[in-house]
Amino acid sequence: MAANRREWTRESLAEGVRSGDKRALARAISLVEDGDALAYELIRDLYPQTGRAYAIGITGPPGVGKSSLISALVRHVRERETSVGVISVDPSSPFSHGALLGDRIRLSDHFLDPEVFIRSMGTRGHLGGLAEATLQALLVLDAAGKDLVFVETVGAGQGEVEVIGIADTVVLVLMPGSGDSVQALKAGIMEIPDVIAINKMDHPAAKTMLNEVRSILSLDRESAWRPPIVLTEAVRGENVDALWDKIEAHRAHLESDGLLEARRRKNLAGEVFAVASGRAKMHLERAVEGDPELRRLLDEVQRRELDPLTAVQEILLKVFKLGDPDGSHTR
Amino acid sequence: MAANRREWTRESLAEGVRSGDKRALARAISLVEDGDALAYELIRDLYPQTGRAYAIGITGPPGVGKSSLISALVRHVRERETSVGVISVDPSSPFSHGALLGDRIRLSDHFLDPEVFIRSMGTRGHLGGLAEATLQALLVLDAAGKDLVFVETVGAGQGEVEVIGIADTVVLVLMPGSGDSVQALKAGIMEIPDVIAINKMDHPAAKTMLNEVRSILSLDRESAWRPPIVLTEAVRGENVDALWDKIEAHRAHLESDGLLEARRRKNLAGEVFAVASGRAKMHLERAVEGDPELRRLLDEVQRRELDPLTAVQEILLKVFKLGDPDGSHTR
Repeated sequence: MAANRREWTRESLAEGVRSGDKRALARAISLVEDGDALAYELIRDLYPQTGRAYAIGITGPPGVGKSSLISALVRHVRERETSVGVISVDPSSPFSHGALLGDRIRLSDHFLDPEVFIRSMGTRGHLGGLAEATLQALLVLDAAGKDLVFVETVGAGQGEVEVIGIADTVVLVLMPGSGDSVQALKAGIMEIPDVIAINKMDHPAAKTMLNEVRSILSLDRESAWRPPIVLTEAVRGENVDALWDKIEAHRAHLESDGLLEARRRKNLAGEVFAVASGRAKMHLERAVEGDPELRRLLDEVQRRELDPLTAVQEILLKVFKLGDPDGSHTR
Repeated sequence: MAANRREWTRESLAEGVRSGDKRALARAISLVEDGDALAYELIRDLYPQTGRAYAIGITGPPGVGKSSLISALVRHVRERETSVGVISVDPSSPFSHGALLGDRIRLSDHFLDPEVFIRSMGTRGHLGGLAEATLQALLVLDAAGKDLVFVETVGAGQGEVEVIGIADTVVLVLMPGSGDSVQALKAGIMEIPDVIAINKMDHPAAKTMLNEVRSILSLDRESAWRPPIVLTEAVRGENVDALWDKIEAHRAHLESDGLLEARRRKNLAGEVFAVASGRAKMHLERAVEGDPELRRLLDEVQRRELDPLTAVQEILLKVFKLGDPDGSHTR
């Protein structure tokens, strides 16, 4: 639109991404966010060059300091010339816009570094939702030659699990006061991550939380990998080196015995499935919205003339030509 | 299997449910859990008699005392001869089995009361997942003439939102230490419920949490309903009457101005959609599992011969005959 805005072609964009050009990366990820057709062509072109970046998922409840911790980790790895990408995924919620921005600012230290690319992502109008957009953005940064890509997600719900499902190493960040997350770990509702950071280690309750988390993890005696727990203070950068060592240790664990290959295989299959079901869901939503006949089914349900599960069957039949998968419900 | 086990027919089961027979209810909900064809026929038969029960969703992180609070609420409403159903939905997780059982026991006070029916539900082999099973169980208890049905869910992820989406009034239960949930409310990641209970009110931090939650809620100046916050102590039954009054106040609010009708319409449409997309997802999973050609696509992705998003398109085309919804990705 603006006169000084460069016009990208599929070829020039792919070339720009491969050379790590920041404007090309920014444009590519904007196309991803918009679900633009060009993004899909680009990914197709870039895919053979991917698979080299190591993806680290940083997850946890809001307010625990995930962004600060990523910023500190980026600073740490930049001392060794490692190139880094950061993808931060915010849930699209009416309340969330701006509320998390303060957190983002600490990442700005790195914005001038040519070997660091940071992008906060929304998924306006994206067909396959967060999982699809994150996967695409990760592939773009991978093709750009980033050695490491951090993927930051908020929370621990199903959507976040699908986003973080692509990561080679998953770091769960908690802080003293993260009682709900600790209970969720305890109840088995939250997946056990590969590494746990308890941030804000100066808090008097940090040690108590460490012991709680440790005792929960000790219940699992079967896994080959025992998730290490690190107390950190992200803002002052304390113990960030120790956290990084644990991430590297997990990577080394995966790289021995071919576990990384197996994990990536499983992750990729999971992501393909998550993206496909995200798309199917979106397709369903649009079909029901746009089709007066399907809307009428809902009216009948509302008037108690048609039960909701028969309505579901009729919708699936109409939208996906999907009869009952095993025939058991129409007997 | 056992010799004394009654053989139910579609007719006798529907009759048994309508008369509120506990064995019929138990059998019906077992059929629901198993995704049995008979459950669908039963729901079809019963649906015209539903719509009378008031559904109250009780949600919140694990360990805050949701079950105890439901038990205390049941005791309270039973004093007025109100008949009650309780559906408790546990996520199916390898860690969770048993971990929450202690919580359940307090509900056992009511097991001998003929006007109270309590059921903890899993969803083994259920096509449409938790949302579908919960909706069916709710309709069964509604048809059985229960005045109130409590639906208990753990957590606040997307799956839980879909389960709780059918409730007329949603109560979020927190406790001192629920820092993550408070942050999630603040960040807008968690939906604002209709009523909030802060349980374990004797805890020294209960008042602080009350103030935190109050200040978060005060940011919303537009909604007609301001969610009340009640401090409770479920085990001793303290302030349970106050909590009940707030639930009733919300109900009265909905029943004035026809809001209840509108909410139920929206909820039902949302549930139909959630169940349909749950089924589509399950269908996709089974199709990919069972089809060597689709598995081969995943192998090609793994070998970097085919990019994951093209694989997604091919899978959707094969499983759902689903071309690109708006044609934008194949241009």
